[in-house]
Amino acid sequence: MYQLLKGMTVVEGAAFIAGPSCALYLAQMGARVIRFDQAGGGPDARRWPLGPHGESLYWEGLNKGKLSIALDFRKPEARELAQQLATGGDGLFVTNFPVDGFLSHDKLQALRDDQITLRVMGWADGSPAVDYTVNAAIGVPYLTGHADDPRPVGHVLPAWDLVTGSYSAFALLAAERERATSGKGREIRVALSDIAATSLANLGNLAEVILSGADRPRSGNNLFGAFGRDFVANDGTRFMLVAITPKQWNGMLTGLGIAEDVSALAAELGVDFARDEGARFTWRERLDPLVEAGFARFTAEELEGQFAAAGVTWSRYHTLHESITAEPRLFADNPLFSELVHPGGSSYPAPGAPARIPGEDRGDASPAPVIGANTDEVLAEFLGLDSGAIGRLHDEGVVGQA
Amino acid sequence: MYQLLKGMTVVEGAAFIAGPSCALYLAQMGARVIRFDQAGGGPDARRWPLGPHGESLYWEGLNKGKLSIALDFRKPEARELAQQLATGGDGLFVTNFPVDGFLSHDKLQALRDDQITLRVMGWADGSPAVDYTVNAAIGVPYLTGHADDPRPVGHVLPAWDLVTGSYSAFALLAAERERATSGKGREIRVALSDIAATSLANLGNLAEVILSGADRPRSGNNLFGAFGRDFVANDGTRFMLVAITPKQWNGMLTGLGIAEDVSALAAELGVDFARDEGARFTWRERLDPLVEAGFARFTAEELEGQFAAAGVTWSRYHTLHESITAEPRLFADNPLFSELVHPGGSSYPAPGAPARIPGEDRGDASPAPVIGANTDEVLAEFLGLDSGAIGRLHDEGVVGQA
Repeated sequence: MYQLLKGMTVVEGAAFIAGPSCALYLAQMGARVIRFDQAGGGPDARRWPLGPHGESLYWEGLNKGKLSIALDFRKPEARELAQQLATGGDGLFVTNFPVDGFLSHDKLQALRDDQITLRVMGWADGSPAVDYTVNAAIGVPYLTGHADDPRPVGHVLPAWDLVTGSYSAFALLAAERERATSGKGREIRVALSDIAATSLANLGNLAEVILSGADRPRSGNNLFGAFGRDFVANDGTRFMLVAITPKQWNGMLTGLGIAEDVSALAAELGVDFARDEGARFTWRERLDPLVEAGFARFTAEELEGQFAAAGVTWSRYHTLHESITAEPRLFADNPLFSELVHPGGSSYPAPGAPARIPGEDRGDASPAPVIGANTDEVLAEFLGLDSGAIGRLHDEGVVGQA
Repeated sequence: MYQLLKGMTVVEGAAFIAGPSCALYLAQMGARVIRFDQAGGGPDARRWPLGPHGESLYWEGLNKGKLSIALDFRKPEARELAQQLATGGDGLFVTNFPVDGFLSHDKLQALRDDQITLRVMGWADGSPAVDYTVNAAIGVPYLTGHADDPRPVGHVLPAWDLVTGSYSAFALLAAERERATSGKGREIRVALSDIAATSLANLGNLAEVILSGADRPRSGNNLFGAFGRDFVANDGTRFMLVAITPKQWNGMLTGLGIAEDVSALAAELGVDFARDEGARFTWRERLDPLVEAGFARFTAEELEGQFAAAGVTWSRYHTLHESITAEPRLFADNPLFSELVHPGGSSYPAPGAPARIPGEDRGDASPAPVIGANTDEVLAEFLGLDSGAIGRLHDEGVVGQA
């Protein structure tokens, strides 16, 4: 891990993706992250995908480099311990527990005045939501997919969770920065529903439907309002291709040998494709056959040479499995990844921080803990309990261990 | 805007989504953001969607609350001014300019030793990439879509851009926090390709294909490894439904009147659906007809009552346009949004920060600037130029104005 946040301690009481990924990003930048879980594992401990020993690869991925303490929340004393953990150390707590439960910010701030609570939520009003229900509510599945099939298409990538997680890491640091001068604690609530609504507004999608009064029709794999689509070489290789600047556009036409055909089309339509990105999208049903014909003249290898010369942006399509060998910049040769033995017993590559800081030692990535692996260490070093008190908590089943 | 980052100044020289959204998040938390653009607009100034006056709703959305200075980069002196801007103020610069060009970190650090440069990249090796080409390279389009259609499905939501933007805001604050004690400047590079690779690794997808040796088959709108899918009520209303805990699962079965049928299926298969999320996914072809039959007995309104009682997570599907009226928590009644007149002349609601901080005044959202609206102000107040120098820059066409 990098050491930018060295010396900071963050406590996590969260599950699933958004909260845990927020704390993961903090850990990968050097923060000490203490995660508490229900002894035996919370609701995300067995989430798929599973590895060959039945271990959750999802849990292992989202909790790398954290310390784990296990509590039995059925016992009132475990809930008190969770409050002490949340308000201990630097008073930085990441959670998705309910807004008005025993980990409400009011209860925590009563214990520590400068407490910062970063609360990930589903709906901002406290109603339950997950990425996939928010996505259905806001209309992305009706925008996704091929134009000849009206069925909604959910995303498989939990994008709202991931944005919520990284935004939450940002918001936590912003609050901590302000506290350094004011001493002020606060709760920051980041809801999946708000992340989705503001993202679609920031991209112009909301304004588009409000001002036009209508939904945008589906446009399949076309990049809306510009030139970008999938095309197939004469050996069957599929490419995603995006040309933006006039130079890229003209270079692409020349490379594909279709400059004259496209000039004739532009003259017929009275448009300037080189300068008007939008025209390339508007007239895509006329342009696409010309581009398709260009692609059909070349092999994938020939096309790649032309794309490089034209400076266009492109990639072959891969499956995730193919990407490991065919695009080694992603995983196989990516210095962000190192091979680790994970708590479930499997060995596979895992990444550290998704940032590169030239000149700085990124260290190795660390595996996730077994749940409860650090129970005694956290009770002793973070909460300052002596061995007698720790023994009693075990005897009474308030805490658990690995 | 909130005021957590009040007093911080960030300079942005970026285009498209990731870099501008990073700086937008900073602005919405109170930072002063100065964005420089090519006079007349850079490559993203006319990106769709467009409003009724031809204005880019995309540009207006991503640049709210920033100050704008226009430079003509064809002039060497404009490139020098950009270097002065990038290293001025707090020495915090967000960019997607090439890693080795006139805004390289080495060139900037030669002007200011404690310079922090946050550079958004396509491929981490400097090759061009956009969200949609990275997505094709890493295999998400082959995981997306209905199982009966083998065509790849690109996402319409630029998820990698959005995660890169929010992660970059986090990474910038982490570097600035460290600099406060060490005085050390650094460059942080956040590449779309690294964000995509680490995200799929953090979610367990990479380990899954490495350990199994195979790609996961498409599962349409099913939540992989759990119970979540779209179902249709007897009035045609489509719902996304997710049941996670045993309590939610059992409540759903009772509400739909299918508890006995599902018990019989569980007995036949020898599985415990209430405790084993994975079994619900494994046996979905047997379970789904039972759930579908349950849905077909009820209207949407009846179902919503049952979902609320069962505590399951659900949403009706909407189009984005429908969501404005049918789900007012997203936009219509969302206090994050306020109605603004934007620089292109249209009025529509726009959000501030996607966070809620109880007890704190969020102020109003601010519209984007017209490009070059703040040229003189930035030259005078930020770079300290006198009116004679500013006049000369205008006369020689080094800077532009709105």
